[in-house]
Amino acid sequence: MRLIICGMGVVGQSFVKLLIDSSESLYKKYGIKPRIVACADSNGVAYSQTGLDLEKLLIVKKKYGTVAKYSGEKLHFENYIENIDAEVFLELTPTNLISGEPGLSHIISALRTHKNVITVNKGPLALSFPSLIELSDYNNVMLRFSGTVGGGTPVLEFAKHCLKGDKITSFSGILNGTTNYILTKMTEGFTFDEAFNDAKIKGFAEAESSLDIDGDDAAAKLVIMANWIMGYKVSMKDVDKKGISNVKLDDINDAIKNRKNIKLIAKCDEKNLYVKPSIISTDDPICVNGTLNAVTFKSVHSGDQTIIGRGAGGMETASSVLRDLIEIKENFLNS
Amino acid sequence: MRLIICGMGVVGQSFVKLLIDSSESLYKKYGIKPRIVACADSNGVAYSQTGLDLEKLLIVKKKYGTVAKYSGEKLHFENYIENIDAEVFLELTPTNLISGEPGLSHIISALRTHKNVITVNKGPLALSFPSLIELSDYNNVMLRFSGTVGGGTPVLEFAKHCLKGDKITSFSGILNGTTNYILTKMTEGFTFDEAFNDAKIKGFAEAESSLDIDGDDAAAKLVIMANWIMGYKVSMKDVDKKGISNVKLDDINDAIKNRKNIKLIAKCDEKNLYVKPSIISTDDPICVNGTLNAVTFKSVHSGDQTIIGRGAGGMETASSVLRDLIEIKENFLNS
Repeated sequence: MRLIICGMGVVGQSFVKLLIDSSESLYKKYGIKPRIVACADSNGVAYSQTGLDLEKLLIVKKKYGTVAKYSGEKLHFENYIENIDAEVFLELTPTNLISGEPGLSHIISALRTHKNVITVNKGPLALSFPSLIELSDYNNVMLRFSGTVGGGTPVLEFAKHCLKGDKITSFSGILNGTTNYILTKMTEGFTFDEAFNDAKIKGFAEAESSLDIDGDDAAAKLVIMANWIMGYKVSMKDVDKKGISNVKLDDINDAIKNRKNIKLIAKCDEKNLYVKPSIISTDDPICVNGTLNAVTFKSVHSGDQTIIGRGAGGMETASSVLRDLIEIKENFLNS
Repeated sequence: MRLIICGMGVVGQSFVKLLIDSSESLYKKYGIKPRIVACADSNGVAYSQTGLDLEKLLIVKKKYGTVAKYSGEKLHFENYIENIDAEVFLELTPTNLISGEPGLSHIISALRTHKNVITVNKGPLALSFPSLIELSDYNNVMLRFSGTVGGGTPVLEFAKHCLKGDKITSFSGILNGTTNYILTKMTEGFTFDEAFNDAKIKGFAEAESSLDIDGDDAAAKLVIMANWIMGYKVSMKDVDKKGISNVKLDDINDAIKNRKNIKLIAKCDEKNLYVKPSIISTDDPICVNGTLNAVTFKSVHSGDQTIIGRGAGGMETASSVLRDLIEIKENFLNS
């Protein structure tokens, strides 16, 4: 099974480590023998038709900051995504919720050249979910994206595979760990600014933290879930969105007095998609603290089901990429 | 697809209602057209080789208290489980954790005559899991039991299907709703006896409530999970078990002062299986209240995953029987 990896940040490097660790069990349990034939970062491409040496790839990336130095000389590939043969393309570049680029163009190139695609990049899906699914169907390949929602927590798989014969009518939850960390700190008496600074120091809030604070990250995940789980054809513009920057310490203290709490809740029902700070009971299973994510699915027969986990983390997200790879192998290459 | 149902209590009747409600979508989505060819309760058997009239079956059960009156006269079948042809046998009789009977004999009869089996009865599995799985493998049929753990909450499916490529190293949780209700009431200041009585009045604690209070019900579920998820070969006698009847109000109040709580926790790790009242943090996602159940799975790469839902309920459990039926259809009858 030949893979092309695009993006060698934390998730990309974790995934390569995971492949090294899991190679034996992957072959034994699933018959998968992955070869990374190309690996790209913003500086260039490492390439080997027989498969890159994974240990060496990690060392080169660490030493030079780019995989482009893998062969000693810097390789340049014209349209490497289209021109290199592979069964699976992995889109692991950072999320861009304005244009979806460069991830969107990468995914389109891969699907058009009949490559299955795994993406952890939310941008392309949040902006163009229906057309990307159509493109993958047309080219008879799979598009998978478990890592876009919940990090390593299998939120999408749960909804899709664990409630067969039933119907999910709505879902709601906490889809962003950074804002949940800030709101949790505020319950301890810190102001929004103090809590936000603390999140930055701890590394939970990053350069693009406005995407978290303003609710865009949660909205992007909500859009992906609404398309995939509910079959809606929606994008970012369909989400009624409000961030947490106006949540006051007094509001939180008032909520706590009544055994409640304020959380940034993303919700999808039959009519609406919204992300907004909401008062919920501390008894509600989705009322989790710290950087945790939580989603409750309401179904017709089997009642409310909640799934909780860390919504981020390099190795966690890499494990979801591996799950997608196994699913592609099981559903597609065997057929 | 021909079914034999044994046991027409709350779950059995809910399942028949669910079949009536879902017949169209079952056929459309999964190609399943179920016919109940025989339905038994403790008074006798209703039988029709072309399939029982489901509406009539429910009316007869309600009116006469037994399905035996379905044909006007009471039918007696010698070894009906073995002698009636069917693809799937549903064991829905009450749990017996001492001998496993009559469920155990029913399941053995069905497996021996090459019928796939779905059971919501925990007894046979808690006592004889490894040998029943062996018997089903030998006869090339499936044994499924989603409803034995978590009611409608797909705890077993989650662990088995949603963490592919990863490895669960341990799990722990609240597996019994009745004891969780009692402990939750005690956090409100009620004594054990008061809380227990309240649970009886509300219908959460039933005739066999000692099974709940003493931790046997949770232990049975723990055994099923340890066998199925971890591949252990264990039974009830391997569980170190302690119930909740000695939990004092003072202990609970002390825990609450430290933002903790006392819950009846069932835990399985690499060495031990135990059920005992344990002090856990209120920040722990499994610290749920009321009749809720919750389980956290620890995995190597994707971190901690928690799943929460109602652990009981007729329709909820019936929905898990339906999931098993779909799985049998997908995995077995198509092969």
